[in-house]
Amino acid sequence: MNNISKIQSIAKWLSQKNIDIAFINNFNTIKYLTGFNSDPIERVLALIIFKDKEPFIFCPSLEVEAIKENNWPYEIYSYMDDEDPYKLIANTIYKNISNPQKIAIEAKNLTVFKLKKLTNLFPNTNFSTYIDDYIDQLRVIKSEQEIELLLKAGKDADFAFQTAFNKIHEGVTEQQISTEIDYSLKKKGIMHTSFDPLIQFGKHAAEPHGETSDIKATKNELILIDLGTVYNNYISDATRTVALGKITDRQKDIYNICLEANLEAINAIKPGISAKELDGIARNIITKYGYGDYFIHRLGHGIGQSEHEYPDISQSSNIILKKGMCFSIEPGIYIPNELGVRIEDCVYVTKNGCKTFTNTTKKLLQL
Amino acid sequence: MNNISKIQSIAKWLSQKNIDIAFINNFNTIKYLTGFNSDPIERVLALIIFKDKEPFIFCPSLEVEAIKENNWPYEIYSYMDDEDPYKLIANTIYKNISNPQKIAIEAKNLTVFKLKKLTNLFPNTNFSTYIDDYIDQLRVIKSEQEIELLLKAGKDADFAFQTAFNKIHEGVTEQQISTEIDYSLKKKGIMHTSFDPLIQFGKHAAEPHGETSDIKATKNELILIDLGTVYNNYISDATRTVALGKITDRQKDIYNICLEANLEAINAIKPGISAKELDGIARNIITKYGYGDYFIHRLGHGIGQSEHEYPDISQSSNIILKKGMCFSIEPGIYIPNELGVRIEDCVYVTKNGCKTFTNTTKKLLQL
Repeated sequence: MNNISKIQSIAKWLSQKNIDIAFINNFNTIKYLTGFNSDPIERVLALIIFKDKEPFIFCPSLEVEAIKENNWPYEIYSYMDDEDPYKLIANTIYKNISNPQKIAIEAKNLTVFKLKKLTNLFPNTNFSTYIDDYIDQLRVIKSEQEIELLLKAGKDADFAFQTAFNKIHEGVTEQQISTEIDYSLKKKGIMHTSFDPLIQFGKHAAEPHGETSDIKATKNELILIDLGTVYNNYISDATRTVALGKITDRQKDIYNICLEANLEAINAIKPGISAKELDGIARNIITKYGYGDYFIHRLGHGIGQSEHEYPDISQSSNIILKKGMCFSIEPGIYIPNELGVRIEDCVYVTKNGCKTFTNTTKKLLQL
Repeated sequence: MNNISKIQSIAKWLSQKNIDIAFINNFNTIKYLTGFNSDPIERVLALIIFKDKEPFIFCPSLEVEAIKENNWPYEIYSYMDDEDPYKLIANTIYKNISNPQKIAIEAKNLTVFKLKKLTNLFPNTNFSTYIDDYIDQLRVIKSEQEIELLLKAGKDADFAFQTAFNKIHEGVTEQQISTEIDYSLKKKGIMHTSFDPLIQFGKHAAEPHGETSDIKATKNELILIDLGTVYNNYISDATRTVALGKITDRQKDIYNICLEANLEAINAIKPGISAKELDGIARNIITKYGYGDYFIHRLGHGIGQSEHEYPDISQSSNIILKKGMCFSIEPGIYIPNELGVRIEDCVYVTKNGCKTFTNTTKKLLQL
């Protein structure tokens, strides 16, 4: 799936701002606009969009075939490993425009080193316009077709939770559960997770960015499962926390506080509310019960083709929600050396409210 | 494993160059220097090294526990999602140095956007020194301990090839083989691959950067398997091409040409030879037989904690090899719509020659 109409929107934006060229080099943006999905690592991949000429892709020669398979309708220029890619890009640009005045860049992705290469080759060109925010705006409202794909990714995440729940028992390691999730997905043809399934038992879950380890499950503890899948470049991301054996009232209370924060925030979502208000709703609930200091991250992040994208759902985000925006709601309570609870769904904003992409139960499961 | 002595080397380098600070924000560099392994995605992670004071790590608050677990002996400063990380970093730096004259940056990693944040906060500071090349030099000669880890990663890759060979049969899909490789590794406790195993059948292998697909294996074709594993942050990367059923003389010839290029290049490796000469040895062999136009990438890339690192082994790389350098040798011949062959081992340079990290046979297997 390519987005030629969005490339045309960028060309129009360039024209309105009287900028000659957009130099797009974030491979996630290129994936979004062209359907071609490849991280060039240290090689050079760029999409050059002109205000009034046909765009072209510049890529390593070994990517040409794969780009053609994505039905790219315009030119592809490529380079060999022993050639200087920047010189070749510059030559191709100069063939189209003899003296570009302004080139817009993705400042949140372009490195200082690459910009220096470009400014050496275009000494008379102004590179001070950043296109990042405009691209965020292009991507933030998901089309019906995009929401369909996100729903499909959500279904795959629900499937993965069922595997996880089935594999939890005393003595199993975090890594074993993660392995079985991954394997069951791949056996079903779901080849890509958006990140390795994160499984954390008991107090290990107090590290929200810890890694799945060889810790073994013991009775009477909470287990956190955070996972995500990829469907046709679109991502799911969800977290459930479940109990193995009998848990204490305190464990249950903390779970229910986190759940209340999750449900109340989701309940409040509708066009017109701000991201900041939403974060506040969840944060106030957790704070009211005395756990505010243990909710050590924002409420959520945008989702789409990227795992974390615009908009940010945090205390400092003034963005007003609109129909078609997609993001996570993931309150968490992390008590060092004791436990961690996080409950996460991604949602899309509808005309009057929102819907979740994942539907695995949030009632506390006791396995 | 942290590398405090390498941090001290950087401090010494700063002192020699009269630079106050190195601003390290490539998470791979931070992993190498501190042992802490986490991609902060859109959050901010930095290691601040002073020429004459103790370094500190600056990280999202939810990473603090994980960094402590890596025995980081110096200060950790953290920020919450609703705080401005750059302001906090700047304040902490200013507490140490009231008026830094020069801050060195990783220009190949720092984005234009982040540099702008820094220059706004340090308006009187010069940011034009790039530390990238020095860090490449710090990392390029692997210690005996690092080579031990790379050898262990290589053994895991050899294990993965055995799984792959066992799973190849008529009708199996590329994805099924990839899935089984991954699962068998994880069942053995080898939790991370350095990239998803790339399996390509027949003419699909003519796209050296194509993706593992649902194409089914048919008799009488060549099958390319490129895979890599991670052992304690150190990476393996190797490729084998094998035959399913009977193949033609032409297929065999092309395989043997690629093998000759692989073996002759490996045979030529020793301290003192240049990367360019090495690439030339392999390229000349392939060219001599008439397939030079189908070897469309460089001969190899450095390896260590990163899948692709310094040094580059290409026609344009003048680096002279030294004992302890580690890199791939991976000649390939890709004939569009027909076949692809690549044979890859990573090696480390010894006193008189080199040794490979992987030892899976390179004799053409006919499965």
